Amino acid sequence: MSNFPPATHDVFFFDDLLSPEERETRYKVREFAEKEIAPVIADCWERAEFPHHLVPKLAKLNLGGATLKGYGCSGQSILSAAMTVIELARVDGSMSTFLMVHNSLTMLTIGLLGSEEQKQQLLPKMAALEWVGAWGLTEPSNGSDASALETTAKKVDGGWVLNGRKRWIGNATFAEVVVIWARNLDTNQVNAFVVRKGTPGFTTSKIENKIALRCVQNADILMQDCFVADAARLPGVNNFQDTAKVLAISRIMVAWQPVGLAMGVYDMCNRYLKERKQFGTALAAFQISQEKLARMLGNIQGMWLMGWRLSKLYEQGRMTHAMASMAKAWNTLRGREVMALGRELLGGNGVVGDFLVAKSFGDMEAIYTYEGTYEVNALVAGREATGLAAFKAPPKRAQTGKGQHVQA
Amino acid sequence: MSNFPPATHDVFFFDDLLSPEERETRYKVREFAEKEIAPVIADCWERAEFPHHLVPKLAKLNLGGATLKGYGCSGQSILSAAMTVIELARVDGSMSTFLMVHNSLTMLTIGLLGSEEQKQQLLPKMAALEWVGAWGLTEPSNGSDASALETTAKKVDGGWVLNGRKRWIGNATFAEVVVIWARNLDTNQVNAFVVRKGTPGFTTSKIENKIALRCVQNADILMQDCFVADAARLPGVNNFQDTAKVLAISRIMVAWQPVGLAMGVYDMCNRYLKERKQFGTALAAFQISQEKLARMLGNIQGMWLMGWRLSKLYEQGRMTHAMASMAKAWNTLRGREVMALGRELLGGNGVVGDFLVAKSFGDMEAIYTYEGTYEVNALVAGREATGLAAFKAPPKRAQTGKGQHVQA
Amino acid sequence: MSNFPPATHDVFFFDDLLSPEERETRYKVREFAEKEIAPVIADCWERAEFPHHLVPKLAKLNLGGATLKGYGCSGQSILSAAMTVIELARVDGSMSTFLMVHNSLTMLTIGLLGSEEQKQQLLPKMAALEWVGAWGLTEPSNGSDASALETTAKKVDGGWVLNGRKRWIGNATFAEVVVIWARNLDTNQVNAFVVRKGTPGFTTSKIENKIALRCVQNADILMQDCFVADAARLPGVNNFQDTAKVLAISRIMVAWQPVGLAMGVYDMCNRYLKERKQFGTALAAFQISQEKLARMLGNIQGMWLMGWRLSKLYEQGRMTHAMASMAKAWNTLRGREVMALGRELLGGNGVVGDFLVAKSFGDMEAIYTYEGTYEVNALVAGREATGLAAFKAPPKRAQTGKGQHVQA
Amino acid sequence: MSNFPPATHDVFFFDDLLSPEERETRYKVREFAEKEIAPVIADCWERAEFPHHLVPKLAKLNLGGATLKGYGCSGQSILSAAMTVIELARVDGSMSTFLMVHNSLTMLTIGLLGSEEQKQQLLPKMAALEWVGAWGLTEPSNGSDASALETTAKKVDGGWVLNGRKRWIGNATFAEVVVIWARNLDTNQVNAFVVRKGTPGFTTSKIENKIALRCVQNADILMQDCFVADAARLPGVNNFQDTAKVLAISRIMVAWQPVGLAMGVYDMCNRYLKERKQFGTALAAFQISQEKLARMLGNIQGMWLMGWRLSKLYEQGRMTHAMASMAKAWNTLRGREVMALGRELLGGNGVVGDFLVAKSFGDMEAIYTYEGTYEVNALVAGREATGLAAFKAPPKRAQTGKGQHVQA
Repeated sequence: MSNFPPATHDVFFFDDLLSPEERETRYKVREFAEKEIAPVIADCWERAEFPHHLVPKLAKLNLGGATLKGYGCSGQSILSAAMTVIELARVDGSMSTFLMVHNSLTMLTIGLLGSEEQKQQLLPKMAALEWVGAWGLTEPSNGSDASALETTAKKVDGGWVLNGRKRWIGNATFAEVVVIWARNLDTNQVNAFVVRKGTPGFTTSKIENKIALRCVQNADILMQDCFVADAARLPGVNNFQDTAKVLAISRIMVAWQPVGLAMGVYDMCNRYLKERKQFGTALAAFQISQEKLARMLGNIQGMWLMGWRLSKLYEQGRMTHAMASMAKAWNTLRGREVMALGRELLGGNGVVGDFLVAKSFGDMEAIYTYEGTYEVNALVAGREATGLAAFKAPPKRAQTGKGQHVQA
Repeated sequence: MSNFPPATHDVFFFDDLLSPEERETRYKVREFAEKEIAPVIADCWERAEFPHHLVPKLAKLNLGGATLKGYGCSGQSILSAAMTVIELARVDGSMSTFLMVHNSLTMLTIGLLGSEEQKQQLLPKMAALEWVGAWGLTEPSNGSDASALETTAKKVDGGWVLNGRKRWIGNATFAEVVVIWARNLDTNQVNAFVVRKGTPGFTTSKIENKIALRCVQNADILMQDCFVADAARLPGVNNFQDTAKVLAISRIMVAWQPVGLAMGVYDMCNRYLKERKQFGTALAAFQISQEKLARMLGNIQGMWLMGWRLSKLYEQGRMTHAMASMAKAWNTLRGREVMALGRELLGGNGVVGDFLVAKSFGDMEAIYTYEGTYEVNALVAGREATGLAAFKAPPKRAQTGKGQHVQA
Repeated sequence: MSNFPPATHDVFFFDDLLSPEERETRYKVREFAEKEIAPVIADCWERAEFPHHLVPKLAKLNLGGATLKGYGCSGQSILSAAMTVIELARVDGSMSTFLMVHNSLTMLTIGLLGSEEQKQQLLPKMAALEWVGAWGLTEPSNGSDASALETTAKKVDGGWVLNGRKRWIGNATFAEVVVIWARNLDTNQVNAFVVRKGTPGFTTSKIENKIALRCVQNADILMQDCFVADAARLPGVNNFQDTAKVLAISRIMVAWQPVGLAMGVYDMCNRYLKERKQFGTALAAFQISQEKLARMLGNIQGMWLMGWRLSKLYEQGRMTHAMASMAKAWNTLRGREVMALGRELLGGNGVVGDFLVAKSFGDMEAIYTYEGTYEVNALVAGREATGLAAFKAPPKRAQTGKGQHVQA
Repeated sequence: MSNFPPATHDVFFFDDLLSPEERETRYKVREFAEKEIAPVIADCWERAEFPHHLVPKLAKLNLGGATLKGYGCSGQSILSAAMTVIELARVDGSMSTFLMVHNSLTMLTIGLLGSEEQKQQLLPKMAALEWVGAWGLTEPSNGSDASALETTAKKVDGGWVLNGRKRWIGNATFAEVVVIWARNLDTNQVNAFVVRKGTPGFTTSKIENKIALRCVQNADILMQDCFVADAARLPGVNNFQDTAKVLAISRIMVAWQPVGLAMGVYDMCNRYLKERKQFGTALAAFQISQEKLARMLGNIQGMWLMGWRLSKLYEQGRMTHAMASMAKAWNTLRGREVMALGRELLGGNGVVGDFLVAKSFGDMEAIYTYEGTYEVNALVAGREATGLAAFKAPPKRAQTGKGQHVQA
């Protein structure tokens, strides 16, 4: 029995836009999330712990590898992968992110850019969620400017020596398989390496005190003369542009995440407002409440359709990165609006995690910012729209007239 | 040659979601709007005049009657009618509204609720735009509460005598055919009548000083013992609920209108910002400009998809009024945001009509409010979401404690 | 040495609007907050613990009792009390709330409505922060409708028996002195009682899993045949309206709280953006960053002035409850905007508590909602503006037409 | 008798913050605006005409020259000048702008930077409003970047020859006295000249089709070998920085303008909502209406206080340009929000000029953009906050990766 409210957010009958397989994924993941995740997750979130005990149960759903085919992977369509993302996020953003990092960053990188041997060795166990993956690109000092990698890979006899730091790497405190992006000191190009848990010189420390996605275990990673064998290098990665194939899919999935959060918050609010009385009536009967619900509903339909269209364009080979950036930026903008509305609709109960809404309100902030902040994604979309790049600041020039007090 | 900017707003390749016939409508109306309307409309708007000379040219496009079949009507699909609405609105909201009132309110009412004789007499000439239609429901004192009709129809020998006032009736100053909704004094139910131009006792006066849709000629109508023959009554209308069939379609069309305005404003801004220099660079190169463009683009894709899905649900017989209300409310909310962004992007040139953006900025306000204000439509959506109606205010009660100054 | 950034938010030289004593309070509390609270509070917040060890240090600042005079109280002006509130909130909203509940709810109630004996017994120890106060009005089922009290007080020999539940009562898990509001079963009017820690039948349980003001220990209180002596009843309270004198001051203080949060978040962002590099420049050099900083600054000056003017009107005996409600609602609205801007300006570091911004982003949500939600306070202001009360929902009526699918 | 609603916006008793003289100005200008301007202005606005017949009546109020002393000027305090600006703007933004251009740009420039002879010749007649002033800085191609002046002044025997174009110059179609800013071809520095109406080579054409401040007659000015005598040059102007002394005051006045617009719109809405019935009750009784009124009220109090504090700082010689920019930007941002709320509160009547609200909704857009757009003023404030200038776009660099379709 689930304590989770029924799904009332889908007023536009979105099943129509899904294949039978995609619908099946939608409902099986929804059931799992409501039955298995909902009852335990508020407590995990509060304690900032990952619910490891749910992983074997999740594994049974056969979602590992998402869109990858073969090697035990589930071979989902993009929309099936998206349904997985949103139905998990509807109940919990952390679980959705956990699986997305595993599937659509780590496994995908190996599947697209790894050698046959690497795939055979890693993917089956990862598909079965026996080995969890993490994906190390972001560094402490370069946030949105991912191309400015400072982690280095030096070729030595029989392998490579990695040095540097990574930050915000999800799952990395316990992951068996970590993909690390580093600059090849010989070529000055970006390469990628599979680092296994426990490799000497490779240490992780959990990032504490988060207000968002608290169950996701983000790590600061320190690599000090960390040696990996030649076989650890992903042969498909020869420069930074090779991240693009992976990020194209992962950004689609991140664009879907706010949709899931918004769906769950709406469903919770809708039930809550009908049950909760104030001044003698259900809160749902108040004008101010209803306008907010209607605005949330409108946003949710629009966000869902945005994700759907983006996914279809990808399937047809017509999606650009700028489209994914626009959709990610816009869905997070709208998602943030839905979170704020939901948070206030629950009044005092909107600041306690038990009701889900407070939790999702917090989680949304991470999603607004990761895989490119709202602003960076907007500027990527803006570059395509205008043909001009605006990422950098103008050059410094001498300042005059600043701060003078005007004579009266 | 058109002075209108090229269409750059459709980054999601929406042709894919249209049938060949719908695509054809899209492009033929776009061409007409750019070539015929754009060069003359800023001046008409300023003078608050309707460009009558464009009507015969518009007639050649065969758009009369929109979704109606037979009687010379164009028999469009809902989406084809929608393409007509948005491609006109992209260049001019007034022309879009003019045709929508004619097609999707007046002709539709006659087509759905009229007698065979009425259809044969009126629709062919209306389809050819020889006779323009107007649709009289709103009254001075009942704005959003359309059910509180005060106009009366009294049965007399051989016909009916109409008395009352209407307000905001688009096209009515010059329309040949005006559908008037009135309360039957015998049954106390709402009936509808066709009133022809020049009928004694039927006078119209143009509403002046508008800041929105200035080319639309809205009228205050006064009916003083206005006699119409028995044949003027639409036999399909027996109560207020019969307006619903018409409003279902017209509200879809109104939900599409902001999409058209937004498309045009975006296209104009995109060209303007690339051409206009400031501080030595194109305005399009500024971060603040690009973020706004990206936000506009996101809204436009979401709004378009909202209109599209709503239309598809209607075609399948699964649309409720609340869905149309939600989509209308939400698209106007987002449309208003796009207008404000576009207006500010053009700086000083955003307050002069010549650049289209100022005009659409004004027009949006009418659309935000007509066919149900934003608030009323949100509450219609809220009623379906919650099962509770919140249109009315709470009953008055004795006031206490108000306005007392607190002792220090 | 403080890790807290310098104060850069006060561009309008607000010292001018303060008396020497108020300025002194401003700076001594600022120093305490930066030196004592800042270094330890992120960790307390994460663990949802109250920093009891800071209380004796805080006591030395002589802030106990705030505006009360005599009995060891500090006898502050309203603005001096406000400076206390905002300078604490600048560094930590929980500490600000802790002291406000103690001073401007609990002590104030005793000071204004207690007997001479009660004042002599309780206030000196409370002024010295040896005994901490809590204030029990809100109940689980009546949130914003505080007048619908269900807790009862039954007169018995030598005292009163209290029964009922309270929710959200700040400080109550450890407070020595709890003021409980209850309905007198004889008169059906509201009375108030001082309940001491450990009284049989009086149990508190901490509300867990909060995302806001996590250091504040809010309690659910259960009273089961809880006996208090006659002397526990506050003689100045004879009906619900007597809460008003207390709430007038406390609402002013709550209206100031967002100002403090906003000041701190701005200061933190201003330093962070100057120090943090991206794409080769300080983040502070980006247009998008600067527009956000400017908007934050404008909001902060406006919010500060709003609090200041409200306080002055109170001092002059000209403030109405509606003015305080307007100011509280508006300042929380603007405060929420500042929090969102600050949160996004810090990127990933905006979701970790260490940088203060994430913490304040969460805290703001509680303040937006407590002492009357935004909506309830807006409606209080609206009642005074219009002379009409809109708190209740309209009466239920039969529903028709809902949810019908429209025929295509 | 005035058709204008009573003033209900000042809930914070702002008379307290004014001197007796400032209060007197407040009420005499209010009376004039309500009695003389309100009855005629909607019609003028529609026809885009300036109400010349009101000028002699306005002259009797003795407001000419605003803060200037001597030469028949009124010698107002900054706040008295501000009261003039807002009380005019409360009824009509165009009249407010007309006088501000005359007083706080043109006369002020002459008063601060002119020779004694120029002052004696020009100011008395201008103070009496016999001669109206205009102020020509902005050019067609440099909007916000006012320093990039292209108009030239070439020294010739006995005078100067001016060549170039100005745009948006308020009052210039009929002004007797136009101050023209031009680049001295010898020094390459900016100088200023008084050009009298009818000077050969000086032609003005009215900017048509505005949606904002339609009564203000903005001109495009063309100077073709326009000769002015040596005496026409303002000796106090030796470079662009000399504009700063004038702009300091004018920007304060522009920062006040949205306050006036907001006051008038609120007053109109408050009366309208009480009088207008819907669904059986006054619109003022609806929750959604009241929340909007409360938000408007909060904004108005905050905006008023922002203007007041800025003015006080100026009087004390402590205001920087960045403070004025912050206040102007923020007050226009909030003013725009108030306009949108007011517009929607009036429903259909919000799009017709007769009710004032539509007119002010349009007018606000010009104010949002003139004397530095919102964005430019925000960046001026941002420069002072950060020490870094962000006006320019980043340098162009080669584009890569743009627009590539991602392989599925």
